[in-house]
Amino acid sequence: MSTRIIEVRAKVMKQNDLLARALRERFESAGVCVISLVSSPGSGKTAFLEKLLHRLAREFHVAALVGDLATENDAERLRRATPHVRQITTGTVCHLDAQMVETALEGWDLAALDILFIENVGNLVCPSSYDLGEGLRCVLLSATEGEDKPLKYPTIFNSSDVAILTKMDMAEAAEFDLEAARRNIESVRPGMRIFEVSSKTGLGMEEVLCFLRELRAHASPSAMAEHIQS
Amino acid sequence: MSTRIIEVRAKVMKQNDLLARALRERFESAGVCVISLVSSPGSGKTAFLEKLLHRLAREFHVAALVGDLATENDAERLRRATPHVRQITTGTVCHLDAQMVETALEGWDLAALDILFIENVGNLVCPSSYDLGEGLRCVLLSATEGEDKPLKYPTIFNSSDVAILTKMDMAEAAEFDLEAARRNIESVRPGMRIFEVSSKTGLGMEEVLCFLRELRAHASPSAMAEHIQS
Repeated sequence: MSTRIIEVRAKVMKQNDLLARALRERFESAGVCVISLVSSPGSGKTAFLEKLLHRLAREFHVAALVGDLATENDAERLRRATPHVRQITTGTVCHLDAQMVETALEGWDLAALDILFIENVGNLVCPSSYDLGEGLRCVLLSATEGEDKPLKYPTIFNSSDVAILTKMDMAEAAEFDLEAARRNIESVRPGMRIFEVSSKTGLGMEEVLCFLRELRAHASPSAMAEHIQS
Repeated sequence: MSTRIIEVRAKVMKQNDLLARALRERFESAGVCVISLVSSPGSGKTAFLEKLLHRLAREFHVAALVGDLATENDAERLRRATPHVRQITTGTVCHLDAQMVETALEGWDLAALDILFIENVGNLVCPSSYDLGEGLRCVLLSATEGEDKPLKYPTIFNSSDVAILTKMDMAEAAEFDLEAARRNIESVRPGMRIFEVSSKTGLGMEEVLCFLRELRAHASPSAMAEHIQS
């Protein structure tokens, strides 16, 4: 990449960081717990989120923003669980940024929400650099993608708070080496909490729900950070 | 994205296009057939390429450049098939560009090669915008990623010449809807040639090999373009 584009990008990133900080303060004062999901395309973010929303909607006021280059398909799927879903279509842009999130929130009463999910564009590289003001960032890695991905895409794992191994029902068929995956995550992000789930069979979903309930009980970002570490 | 970064990017893209054009002329005059592979992380580019290289190395002088943010793992794997493999580590950059390809080729006698593969960074968004001077761009989509990806990431399918559906041995377990996948590819890139393969079972590899042999027999880019359409 040219020096010129790096300089301009640095400025844009700084603007994004400022806006993300303002968003984070807004979320905190509204008492809403904001969780973003990042992963490769097709690692099961939407299926996982759909299952979570169905379960969480019984207990909490939940909402979701979903990012994609094109189509409204994901928002339509998620609206079966909750009406509070908005799609952000980015065109050719490979990630969400804080400005897109702020625009998408227009007219929503954040104080009326308990948990807001932000599903990023499927991309294991670019979203890592853009703070969205979230309190928690979850990186998803599917068993079918292979256990080497944390080493090959270290930044996105390093900038996330929690890792979720998805499609564990296919781990055997995909010859997924779970121990190697755990070791690779640990090497790029020591101490990171790791969940193993299958949206299809329901495996591991209870553990994630418990974790989110606890997280919600400590909704301020600083308290959340402590909770994640513990 | 800000107007400023878009303007600077346009200039960088123009530089890339000029350099890619020069590379394409170099490849053509050297008589080497250059094929790039793009896909999500974990859709099986390296496994597919490894199988291809082992087979093609019996008949042709083959070489490969492999892009990753970090690690030399892929190059090491591919070197079992041919010694002519170089890794391009991009750091935090989410795609290969023509300059990286030119630099990586330094010291190689292109005229001594028959087929050169360029495996891009795993990313279904950004690589679509960067011409690498290749004669053929193949987009890979694994059965485990889901049949909706062509609609959600139309640019990368639209800018590719051939689609390869990988991990077809897991299609049933993943409940992959093959007809929908074919329909979705057709809708974003009408007439696109589609192969179905499994690097694990060998399914469909013969068809790909036949296609590549034919392609190699028509190594000039204009003849290649005609061959792809036929």
